[in-house]
Amino acid sequence: MKPIKVGLLGLGVVGGGTWKVLARNAEEIARRAGRRIEVTRVAVRDVAKARMRVGNEVEVAADPHAIVRDPSIDIVVELIGGDTLARELVLEAIANGKHVVTANKALLAKHGNEIFAAASAQGVMVAFEAAVAGGIPIIKAIREGLTANRIEWVAGIINGTTNFILSEMRSRGLPFAQVLAEAQRLGYAEADPTFDIEGVDAAHKLTLLASLAFGVPVQFERAHVEGISNLAAEDIAHAARLGYRIKLLGITRRRADGIELRVHPALVPAERLLANVEGAMNAVLVRGDAVGPTLYYGQGAGEEPTASAVVADLVDVTRLHTADPGNRVPHLAFQPDAMSDTPILSIEDTETSYYLRMRVEDRPGVLADIARILSDASISIGSMIQEPSSDGSGADIIFLTHLARERNVNLAIASIEASPFVRSTVTRLRLENLT
Amino acid sequence: MKPIKVGLLGLGVVGGGTWKVLARNAEEIARRAGRRIEVTRVAVRDVAKARMRVGNEVEVAADPHAIVRDPSIDIVVELIGGDTLARELVLEAIANGKHVVTANKALLAKHGNEIFAAASAQGVMVAFEAAVAGGIPIIKAIREGLTANRIEWVAGIINGTTNFILSEMRSRGLPFAQVLAEAQRLGYAEADPTFDIEGVDAAHKLTLLASLAFGVPVQFERAHVEGISNLAAEDIAHAARLGYRIKLLGITRRRADGIELRVHPALVPAERLLANVEGAMNAVLVRGDAVGPTLYYGQGAGEEPTASAVVADLVDVTRLHTADPGNRVPHLAFQPDAMSDTPILSIEDTETSYYLRMRVEDRPGVLADIARILSDASISIGSMIQEPSSDGSGADIIFLTHLARERNVNLAIASIEASPFVRSTVTRLRLENLT
Repeated sequence: MKPIKVGLLGLGVVGGGTWKVLARNAEEIARRAGRRIEVTRVAVRDVAKARMRVGNEVEVAADPHAIVRDPSIDIVVELIGGDTLARELVLEAIANGKHVVTANKALLAKHGNEIFAAASAQGVMVAFEAAVAGGIPIIKAIREGLTANRIEWVAGIINGTTNFILSEMRSRGLPFAQVLAEAQRLGYAEADPTFDIEGVDAAHKLTLLASLAFGVPVQFERAHVEGISNLAAEDIAHAARLGYRIKLLGITRRRADGIELRVHPALVPAERLLANVEGAMNAVLVRGDAVGPTLYYGQGAGEEPTASAVVADLVDVTRLHTADPGNRVPHLAFQPDAMSDTPILSIEDTETSYYLRMRVEDRPGVLADIARILSDASISIGSMIQEPSSDGSGADIIFLTHLARERNVNLAIASIEASPFVRSTVTRLRLENLT
Repeated sequence: MKPIKVGLLGLGVVGGGTWKVLARNAEEIARRAGRRIEVTRVAVRDVAKARMRVGNEVEVAADPHAIVRDPSIDIVVELIGGDTLARELVLEAIANGKHVVTANKALLAKHGNEIFAAASAQGVMVAFEAAVAGGIPIIKAIREGLTANRIEWVAGIINGTTNFILSEMRSRGLPFAQVLAEAQRLGYAEADPTFDIEGVDAAHKLTLLASLAFGVPVQFERAHVEGISNLAAEDIAHAARLGYRIKLLGITRRRADGIELRVHPALVPAERLLANVEGAMNAVLVRGDAVGPTLYYGQGAGEEPTASAVVADLVDVTRLHTADPGNRVPHLAFQPDAMSDTPILSIEDTETSYYLRMRVEDRPGVLADIARILSDASISIGSMIQEPSSDGSGADIIFLTHLARERNVNLAIASIEASPFVRSTVTRLRLENLT
């Protein structure tokens, strides 16, 4: 069969990895796909540098627009990132009847609805396995592997930088700032780490996972996003003593009244596989009503792991590009006319367990008063530890609650913080049993 | 779009689960597939009992042949098990131009080459996600999710019964026979547990995984198969002290001179995720050259988890049944004309690390003699412990070796066992670092 022709936009980390994997494994890929996948055009900012890399058989140019308009190109691979030029190019490629493969989670989390609608109207595919959890085929698993299921929830470690930082904080007992600096030196964190450490990158990915799991439109703006920059080393240590590890989780859960969509650090029982995902690795736990819990683990970033997903998409698109568009796997797992308008819930409507830490005066009646406040807010206590505070000025109390509504927890915290016997703000972390 | 019509052969555990999941999630499945998937005919041995279950809208009969010949049926789901009648029915369905979905690993491990060739000739699909690791979409992951990769090895816990038994033996310090009896009472092990505990079931599944990973024909007869019935509780305890857990693994690895294909108990470092897969759960670790290690975890058996895979296959076949057969995903991941004749290696050519335990006389020179035997066989020692034997009659020595060739290990063991100072046979277990 004729080779499929690919135009590559961007030759950075992922673009370079894609080029490398396609070249090195050309034979193995063709054995599977039944034809060759050839990059025939590349658009990059630094043309001379790129030409050194890809040689003379490929056309290298600075103008990406020429590629998305080129009638000889079957598939456009967008790896330039950002959501302005990338959006423009992807939409133009679609308008020109080209299939698109992209690793751009920010683009799809913000403009996915527009892009997928345009693609469906044109009868082309937009494949994005590389946008979530790098090399792990999690989109394929949810979109095709679990089609029998009513999916109940998804919980994932979907940002390697923060998982690396949390793993180091725990195993070495170090504070956040010190580990972040080290991660930056090692290249695990960017010079401006905001997107990673504040949970934004994870929220982009979670937004896509929620749409795939529940068939709702992409709604990044409704996601609740908290990062790890305020996480104290002592909470990691307390959690460990209580049998938990703290992970930055992206969680989306179907409830009777809507869908939870939230990224934040959470305590996870130490015996769960997810709690044992260490370093820069990613893992996504998906619970379906028929299959039960399933977990997918691997490298969530990096040159070749991400390229692995890009190339898998290229093979998929190659296989399906002659198929009737109506029979292809829908972009967001559900047929466009079968999407659901189930609302995304406010974070205040979250129902989960909580870890609450506070410093109080060490005198009779204090515990009773706090217990009363919690009970008045319909919060029941699962376990508790109290110990003298390290500075000898009072007592530190930690509560682990049973399932509670976040709105009630917030009211209780306000009430506790307003009490005369409390000497600190209340540290509140969510606790996910993942069962 | 018109519903797709399914004929179901068998209404046992998996057949019943498939019926249940298709009924309960009909809406969710149709939202994804774009059309309904309807079971219109069922063949079972006990017609009256089945009719009670599926009602009057479905034709229930005792003769499965009528279904595989029925022109109104699009897809035949084979869930009767065994490899005589099942083979006959699957081949007849294919000859009649029907797509087939099956959970039958024994059938495919033994007759897969014949069945896939017949299907390719007829232009129909034989889908078998449910045949390996139940609800985990591992076949899809390897066959479609990792197409970019040259796969290096696959190592899996792919039999829930044995993993349950090993988990109980370790956590409760009990001997094999006692845990097996309990597993039988709980329904985790069959009355005749041979297929599970002797590794045959795992070897059926591993055989399929090897073909999918490396593009070699199905060669169950070349698999090396060892079960757990001879595993001593003391070796599990020794392994734990050394930082390892013992799991029944199916391992297939590409080497320069051929492919390893082996099922046996193995020591795995306790910190690996795979070592922490407990109870009846399954997990498969796949290493690709681009993606690195990826792991897939979930329930490997049971009514609804297995049905989850059967129904996912039904959705896939529904989507692809109008596609050009040449563009479909090949049955064994590689195009039929691109299969490899790389040989399956003999177990003697395995290269891995080893755990060797022996009881010896406690006198000077013994250790030196054993070390010399190992060294003469090109086996280098990674670590060693020696302690007085529990009966006070001598010393127990345990070696963990570096990578060694099994042939050399066997020679060394024979030589050690022939030595006058050795009071026991040598217990030999393989050790897999999985890196």
